[in-house]
Amino acid sequence: MDTAEDEKFMRLAIALAESNITSLAGGPFGAVIVKDGQIVAQSGNQVLTLKDPTAHAEISAIRQACENLGSFDLTGCTIYTSCEPCPMCLGAIYWAHIDKVYYGNTRTDAAAAGFDDEHIYKELEKPIPGRVLNMNHLLREEAIRAFTLWGKTDEKQNY
Amino acid sequence: MDTAEDEKFMRLAIALAESNITSLAGGPFGAVIVKDGQIVAQSGNQVLTLKDPTAHAEISAIRQACENLGSFDLTGCTIYTSCEPCPMCLGAIYWAHIDKVYYGNTRTDAAAAGFDDEHIYKELEKPIPGRVLNMNHLLREEAIRAFTLWGKTDEKQNY
Repeated sequence: MDTAEDEKFMRLAIALAESNITSLAGGPFGAVIVKDGQIVAQSGNQVLTLKDPTAHAEISAIRQACENLGSFDLTGCTIYTSCEPCPMCLGAIYWAHIDKVYYGNTRTDAAAAGFDDEHIYKELEKPIPGRVLNMNHLLREEAIRAFTLWGKTDEKQNY
Repeated sequence: MDTAEDEKFMRLAIALAESNITSLAGGPFGAVIVKDGQIVAQSGNQVLTLKDPTAHAEISAIRQACENLGSFDLTGCTIYTSCEPCPMCLGAIYWAHIDKVYYGNTRTDAAAAGFDDEHIYKELEKPIPGRVLNMNHLLREEAIRAFTLWGKTDEKQNY
């Protein structure tokens, strides 16, 4: 059940997206992360100002929230994002263990506005040899050693 | 056609993965980015030391390469990664316009070693209502304004 609180945080994410259009910091996207009713991070897309293709609104907000909370684990947090997350950002949401996502625009809306989200979703669904991206398997027999060693390490920390 | 150069860069990525096991900086993953035969970035996974769930080896290397090259666009670059990229990192590779990927371990190897890559790939393939992650559509009619405004803006820069 969406509440007036949820709408308030989504409207802030939308306002961040709109303010990016005049600031030219990046694309028209914004995200807000909330824990226990308090905002722990908020960001617009910063790809252009930071010259960082990973600085989407959600990634920037996740990094900021982790810094503010002193943890790589955002369990108990909700993210409000002005658009359905792209595969990069959705992956980050899983790795951060965020519990709940609210989104405004869809990936189809993003595609219509000229962004690659839908294209990337389709690429990821294809088997590796069928993708536009050139991907090659190399030296697996040497690479697997790292996982074997990891498996034998007692003091490792899961994330 | 893989060359001795390709194997050299992949072995460096694997060495970065292995050194992470003793340093405990993060999981056993490493990545190297090369442009015109020169290394422009190299990183292990840094999730634990940076307390940043997005600091996978590939994302960290992409951010470093963009800083070193002064651009959000890595067209002409190849990434060598000790493991098939997870959806977050593969998404970042598309956004960065990296041309070519070499990977050592597979997502199945990563799953066997206890990492969520395969789980996240499967989640992304599901329709939103069928996912484990709680995702909700909210205020689309207000969110779409940002894309409408973006479409009317002349000075926008694509990324």
